[in-house]
Amino acid sequence: MIVERGRYGPFFSYTNKEYDTSGISTVHPKQFRMSAFEITYLLTLSDGEDIDQKVKSICLEQSVELPGALLDSHIEEEVVGDPVSIEKVKEDQFEVVISWPIANLGGEITQFINVLYGNISLKPGIRVTSADWTELSDLFAGPAVGLKEVRNRHQVLDRPLSATALKPVGSTPSELANYCFQFACGGIDIIKDDHGLANQSAAPFGARLKACVSAISKAEEQTGNRASYYPNITASPEEAIERYQMAARRGADGVLLCPHISGLPTMHKLAQMDIDLPIIAHPAFSGQLVMHETNGFTPDFLYGQLWRAFGADFIIYPNKGGRFSFTTEQCKAINGAARTPDSDFKKSFPMPGGGMEIDDLDRWVADYGKDTVFLIGGSLYEHPEGIIKGAQELQDKLTRE
Amino acid sequence: MIVERGRYGPFFSYTNKEYDTSGISTVHPKQFRMSAFEITYLLTLSDGEDIDQKVKSICLEQSVELPGALLDSHIEEEVVGDPVSIEKVKEDQFEVVISWPIANLGGEITQFINVLYGNISLKPGIRVTSADWTELSDLFAGPAVGLKEVRNRHQVLDRPLSATALKPVGSTPSELANYCFQFACGGIDIIKDDHGLANQSAAPFGARLKACVSAISKAEEQTGNRASYYPNITASPEEAIERYQMAARRGADGVLLCPHISGLPTMHKLAQMDIDLPIIAHPAFSGQLVMHETNGFTPDFLYGQLWRAFGADFIIYPNKGGRFSFTTEQCKAINGAARTPDSDFKKSFPMPGGGMEIDDLDRWVADYGKDTVFLIGGSLYEHPEGIIKGAQELQDKLTRE
Repeated sequence: MIVERGRYGPFFSYTNKEYDTSGISTVHPKQFRMSAFEITYLLTLSDGEDIDQKVKSICLEQSVELPGALLDSHIEEEVVGDPVSIEKVKEDQFEVVISWPIANLGGEITQFINVLYGNISLKPGIRVTSADWTELSDLFAGPAVGLKEVRNRHQVLDRPLSATALKPVGSTPSELANYCFQFACGGIDIIKDDHGLANQSAAPFGARLKACVSAISKAEEQTGNRASYYPNITASPEEAIERYQMAARRGADGVLLCPHISGLPTMHKLAQMDIDLPIIAHPAFSGQLVMHETNGFTPDFLYGQLWRAFGADFIIYPNKGGRFSFTTEQCKAINGAARTPDSDFKKSFPMPGGGMEIDDLDRWVADYGKDTVFLIGGSLYEHPEGIIKGAQELQDKLTRE
Repeated sequence: MIVERGRYGPFFSYTNKEYDTSGISTVHPKQFRMSAFEITYLLTLSDGEDIDQKVKSICLEQSVELPGALLDSHIEEEVVGDPVSIEKVKEDQFEVVISWPIANLGGEITQFINVLYGNISLKPGIRVTSADWTELSDLFAGPAVGLKEVRNRHQVLDRPLSATALKPVGSTPSELANYCFQFACGGIDIIKDDHGLANQSAAPFGARLKACVSAISKAEEQTGNRASYYPNITASPEEAIERYQMAARRGADGVLLCPHISGLPTMHKLAQMDIDLPIIAHPAFSGQLVMHETNGFTPDFLYGQLWRAFGADFIIYPNKGGRFSFTTEQCKAINGAARTPDSDFKKSFPMPGGGMEIDDLDRWVADYGKDTVFLIGGSLYEHPEGIIKGAQELQDKLTRE
């Protein structure tokens, strides 16, 4: 069942647990709305739930938070969410599109998060699968650098990139710089900090940054090939901004950020700053948003669509078959959302990782395509012939493709 | 089975999906550790999982992110998580305490979030139930104002407080101020913005703040009783800080913040500022962390313990029986964690809300006790005799107890 925009209704069923929507007229389209954006949801009904009621409850919950009967007609016309279509996908499951007034956002990305999934994060059976970003492109700017410019900077236009992580926490700057040097000599394209390297006394941010940038230069002198170094700037918003500036001043090539720890608005802020270091987004603390089939966000919505809108140049996600548990289809969907040309934003570079092995790389390259950065950490450290050899093997596979 | 600190082991089982922990010696206690904090988890095994392996994988994942065999002994001694106890609670379910070195945090609350639930947010069967905050009291300061001082400011020492919300989005400042005036005349203690009121053109933050503060004064002139007004400052971190300052300058009594939208570090920052307006924390966008029985956080850990540590003076949570779905036991556990005197932090004021009815209030007061703020929104707007009458009824119930 596809329903014409603004003409879905009426809503009648009423339970104590939901808003009384009986006062809401939905016969007439909301013709006074100047500008709106659409969100697509997968809704799953629990025992006794009615789809019309569930949809309308979301329309109220995420806007006015009042029963429909209490609303003035101008509020109902101009503020309440508007069901665009309700399509049954299987028993008790529906794909639903709701249109929201842009004016509800007041020009703020934080209020977008609230309308998107504020109160309904506490309700079962609601999963966001997609957003139409066209009307939101004034609010979001997407990646500041993006896939194409990253390729230009690396002068690597036609193969997948490699990435690895400096670890473990507890190492000194010179130990980390030594790993960095070896990875760079082995030809790894992007060398990032482990996301657990913050500002611990074993390797404070500034000392680590200096040592690793210097290691990159030293490797370049020896090999003629320049790797990139991305320090982790995850911290409180103020501190993350300071570290971003320091990373730029001291010659880093980009930065790593956990947006769900510093806060999504902080990633957006960094991407808007007058510093052109690309941002690798790491999924730490985000997992519960994507791990539950009928709730939260699809992985491709969160990591592909939302992170891209919020300015992630690279998108780390847990690859199928590693220590985490996404399916190949979910991984491909993330790649697709990150890279689709059908967007107002620059492309993000997908960066699958988390327990990936060099031996499996051919398969992943075939599956994910060349516009992918393969993040391989542990198995390079484990290589029987050492890090440089492991890195060379990885790089050989990628350049041979 | 209770195991002595640092003496749990050995870990032997190995699957491809987890770290090889075989190189880790756990026979000797980690005697070189100067200072550590403990986190308690409820672990649920999936088919084929082994509890020892799962525990040790967490110890590695949340610290070094490397297989145990690769670690230098000083890293293993000083950095890797240390199982303190593993206790079977039922088939395939264990309560596990792991001790983490304070040094891993580098003095940063963001790195605490990462150690607490960074990568493991992406893994099934791990639920955080408690933290021992004693060793963390240098890192966290808790509420700046707290329950007792809020009572002093209200000069209400011996009964529950009432709270309500100004809404809906789309109203003008004078419409919202008019509601505010009526609630204040009816005797409501705390009048807060709906968390969807941001900086929309219908009621920009500054204009709304001015109008509502003025409405509070006007009601005080008429009734002799002064209500409190808490505007919503949820925004990007910088903007939230500016609005916090503006709220203080212009005579608001406190503020509302959605910490999971602005970011948890922003709530901590606000609580540390030299402004003594109490903060009401709202759970928007936090739901998926608490909605899944064997994952995420228990509601009392997130809303009671973690928010209290991060500086929430008031803790809004969805009450049993409203539009959301916590159980009475879960609600009581949140109250308990927010108010326990067994803490280095000041007490937070629990504020259950979300579809609560005046008629049910006696029951909730009996269940939750007087150190509770009852947040009743919609049903005051719906009162057949109007808002002032509804507010008076609510207030009568609370003062009569």
